[in-house]
Amino acid sequence: MHTLGEIAKLVNAELVGQNDLVIKSLASINCAKSGQLSYVVSSKYQDQLSNTQASAVIISQPLHKFCNTNALIVDDVYLAFAQITHLFKHKVVHTNGIHTSADTNNAIVAPNCCIGERVSIGCDTTIGANTVVEDGTTIGANCTIGANVSILQATTIGNNVVIESGAVIGSEGFGNARDRHKHWHSIAHLGNVVIGNNVNIGANTSIDRGTLEDTHIHQGVRLDNLVHIAHNVVIGEDTAIAACTGVAGSTHIGKRCMIGGMVGVVGHLDICDDVIVNAKSTINKNILTPGIYTGIMPLMPHKKWQIVGVWLTKLDKITQYLNIKLTHLKGK
Amino acid sequence: MHTLGEIAKLVNAELVGQNDLVIKSLASINCAKSGQLSYVVSSKYQDQLSNTQASAVIISQPLHKFCNTNALIVDDVYLAFAQITHLFKHKVVHTNGIHTSADTNNAIVAPNCCIGERVSIGCDTTIGANTVVEDGTTIGANCTIGANVSILQATTIGNNVVIESGAVIGSEGFGNARDRHKHWHSIAHLGNVVIGNNVNIGANTSIDRGTLEDTHIHQGVRLDNLVHIAHNVVIGEDTAIAACTGVAGSTHIGKRCMIGGMVGVVGHLDICDDVIVNAKSTINKNILTPGIYTGIMPLMPHKKWQIVGVWLTKLDKITQYLNIKLTHLKGK
Amino acid sequence: MHTLGEIAKLVNAELVGQNDLVIKSLASINCAKSGQLSYVVSSKYQDQLSNTQASAVIISQPLHKFCNTNALIVDDVYLAFAQITHLFKHKVVHTNGIHTSADTNNAIVAPNCCIGERVSIGCDTTIGANTVVEDGTTIGANCTIGANVSILQATTIGNNVVIESGAVIGSEGFGNARDRHKHWHSIAHLGNVVIGNNVNIGANTSIDRGTLEDTHIHQGVRLDNLVHIAHNVVIGEDTAIAACTGVAGSTHIGKRCMIGGMVGVVGHLDICDDVIVNAKSTINKNILTPGIYTGIMPLMPHKKWQIVGVWLTKLDKITQYLNIKLTHLKGK
Repeated sequence: MHTLGEIAKLVNAELVGQNDLVIKSLASINCAKSGQLSYVVSSKYQDQLSNTQASAVIISQPLHKFCNTNALIVDDVYLAFAQITHLFKHKVVHTNGIHTSADTNNAIVAPNCCIGERVSIGCDTTIGANTVVEDGTTIGANCTIGANVSILQATTIGNNVVIESGAVIGSEGFGNARDRHKHWHSIAHLGNVVIGNNVNIGANTSIDRGTLEDTHIHQGVRLDNLVHIAHNVVIGEDTAIAACTGVAGSTHIGKRCMIGGMVGVVGHLDICDDVIVNAKSTINKNILTPGIYTGIMPLMPHKKWQIVGVWLTKLDKITQYLNIKLTHLKGK
Repeated sequence: MHTLGEIAKLVNAELVGQNDLVIKSLASINCAKSGQLSYVVSSKYQDQLSNTQASAVIISQPLHKFCNTNALIVDDVYLAFAQITHLFKHKVVHTNGIHTSADTNNAIVAPNCCIGERVSIGCDTTIGANTVVEDGTTIGANCTIGANVSILQATTIGNNVVIESGAVIGSEGFGNARDRHKHWHSIAHLGNVVIGNNVNIGANTSIDRGTLEDTHIHQGVRLDNLVHIAHNVVIGEDTAIAACTGVAGSTHIGKRCMIGGMVGVVGHLDICDDVIVNAKSTINKNILTPGIYTGIMPLMPHKKWQIVGVWLTKLDKITQYLNIKLTHLKGK
Repeated sequence: MHTLGEIAKLVNAELVGQNDLVIKSLASINCAKSGQLSYVVSSKYQDQLSNTQASAVIISQPLHKFCNTNALIVDDVYLAFAQITHLFKHKVVHTNGIHTSADTNNAIVAPNCCIGERVSIGCDTTIGANTVVEDGTTIGANCTIGANVSILQATTIGNNVVIESGAVIGSEGFGNARDRHKHWHSIAHLGNVVIGNNVNIGANTSIDRGTLEDTHIHQGVRLDNLVHIAHNVVIGEDTAIAACTGVAGSTHIGKRCMIGGMVGVVGHLDICDDVIVNAKSTINKNILTPGIYTGIMPLMPHKKWQIVGVWLTKLDKITQYLNIKLTHLKGK
């Protein structure tokens, strides 16, 4: 906990309001409650700013007129937010063996595991050798956790969950603010990972924790090996994602989707329920209609590809040469 | 070992045949021997069903007329099979240090390794720190295994094999049956991984064990970092696969192939010997002729790509507008 | 250290020069100094060969006339080089706990870590549980290293560096020479990894050490999860690379670049400063102009893609049918 005055000092902000206000934690603008500090980066969110329950908000000068609470006024809101997150980061110390405050029921915890403070592990769960479980994590009953797994920072895991060896759950998200010298400032991710019942997670897969809220893997989800799930992603119930696929930050994928292997999903998208995407495709826009989608270049003998590829990059010139307009083409 | 009667009960099957038949293990229909239970999902395999040596078979009612052995009749064969696999799964307990039944010759086993029951490690092999080797695994002579490696469930590894740190060998395959509620039921993979002599496996690469038979990495193969090899894949001798490539289930890749980085290979394909595939391509059909293959979109300035991309999705409309038929085009 | 005579014997080379010359190490032709052995694979480098400071060079017969120093003459220079590298490889033995020669200042080293000989760890650095740090590694001050991390073979890491769990730093590069039987012979990578200040490295990311010189990650770089950085790659200051991207050997990426997720970067390329590449693109040629680049197939309903894909592979035939020449098209 820090006072608003201390925080203002850290980021060189103009404080408009109560200097000794105690800030307990950070939250996004539409979730924030009393005692929390939030931030608004653009006038797009001016209504949320006006109506926020946050006790204080980081904003730039032009947004001040929409602010009805304590304000930290800075030039670069996102950068100030990034710097402030580190104040609220809990530094973890790994336990030797099983911490005395952990409740492991009858779970089998293999050798060389580090099980942190207040960890709770359900009945009939097995934890493989050399696995690390950080403070405050909850693991349900009848789970099978592999070897060399890292379960970080107060992750919540349901019942009947399988996590294969080498997986990392709760790693830092890839969120960085850039200053005017083009140097990156990491955001300390303060959210967690929440995994439902009956989820399977493959070998060497990584799931990042959320920035302020949580990353959610809902019940029944299947994630294959070497999958990357970024911060604040939501994967809906019974969705299956094949190996080597990556889902970028804040994207929501619906229920019962089947995402093929090595698909790239761009951030901040919405994929509706019952979508099938074939292997190697790129999802770079929202998908609002269930169905099967593909976007890959067909495989060709290399010599053919070299010629086709050249013409492909001239498609705009070809249609111009042929005087074809988009309006000439029937249907979509 | 379970009786056919017990198994029938588990999946609510109609048992046609011998209730107290002892089933020792599961096998695919064309490999099954006496004492084994198999399954057939489609009438495509009716000849194999008629001729199987299996002592019992899981089938749907319409296939019963082709069955000459004991039968478990169910509505959803694949789902029943998935559920039954778990009966035959050996639950692993990790050893503290080197199990007394392990034979490690003069191998150097670094600190914090867990070496399971009946593991055999050949002369002059080195095992890096914090590596886990599960029960029944065989590792040959003169191998170098890195740190934090997980070698699971009775893997067989030849001589002169290098496995870099963080690799996972023998993880569960990504095989799941879906029930009518669209919930996934994992298949417990009962096959293993078999790795020949002189194979190198990169950092954080994962190789899944087979479903009933084994995943095979033949001698002389080179796998780079972060490669994914799925269940039942076969990689032929002296084939090299660059980083971040994924090979989906049951695909067979021939000898002396060179697969570039971040190539996606779809499941159930055959790639012949001496095939070269350039980086980032997608292999989504069999390759039956040696040669060099490519399938990627050329890189363009983003503004150009936006225009080209639009025309590209209209190629069908453009050819229609120009009244071009496939038959108009000479050659292939 | 080995004499030139011993080395000649290993690879069956004709030695022209001093049999008892002591070779201390290997180096590439333009960096080599007295006491070092180098190699030249093609006449393209004949000037560098003539002017090298190396005490000896591995060459083929036709290049001998350009050589002014001791020579090992072989049929296949690259293969001989690969075999010789293994003579100079230092075999690592992992320490139990912290080696007495390591200097860990006030760093917090979690349980089950193995910290090798002569390792130096700066003030206020934290090393997570089950992490392995090999001999000769230097880690700066105020770093946060996760759990189950492998830091291999004399890596150098600056201050304020974050390495997430499961990352592997300093793994073997994917360099292999092929003999006339098409068998692969690994190159023992003798270079290291050098990481600057303020670098962040994501979960399960791998960075290979250099072949003879080092792999360089310059200060301020951000690497997300499951990224692959190959041997001898150089990543310039303040460049950010999103998850699942792979950079192949010897490519140089400039400063302040932003490379999206799952981008594939081919080897031996130069990417200039201030380049932005969108997710899933392939970089298969040098980029010499700052700007935004893209190269992906747009996502389509699968049925549309099937038709578009067919026409796409006929683009050469379509332009031929329409009698369009590249010279007909205005602009580039």
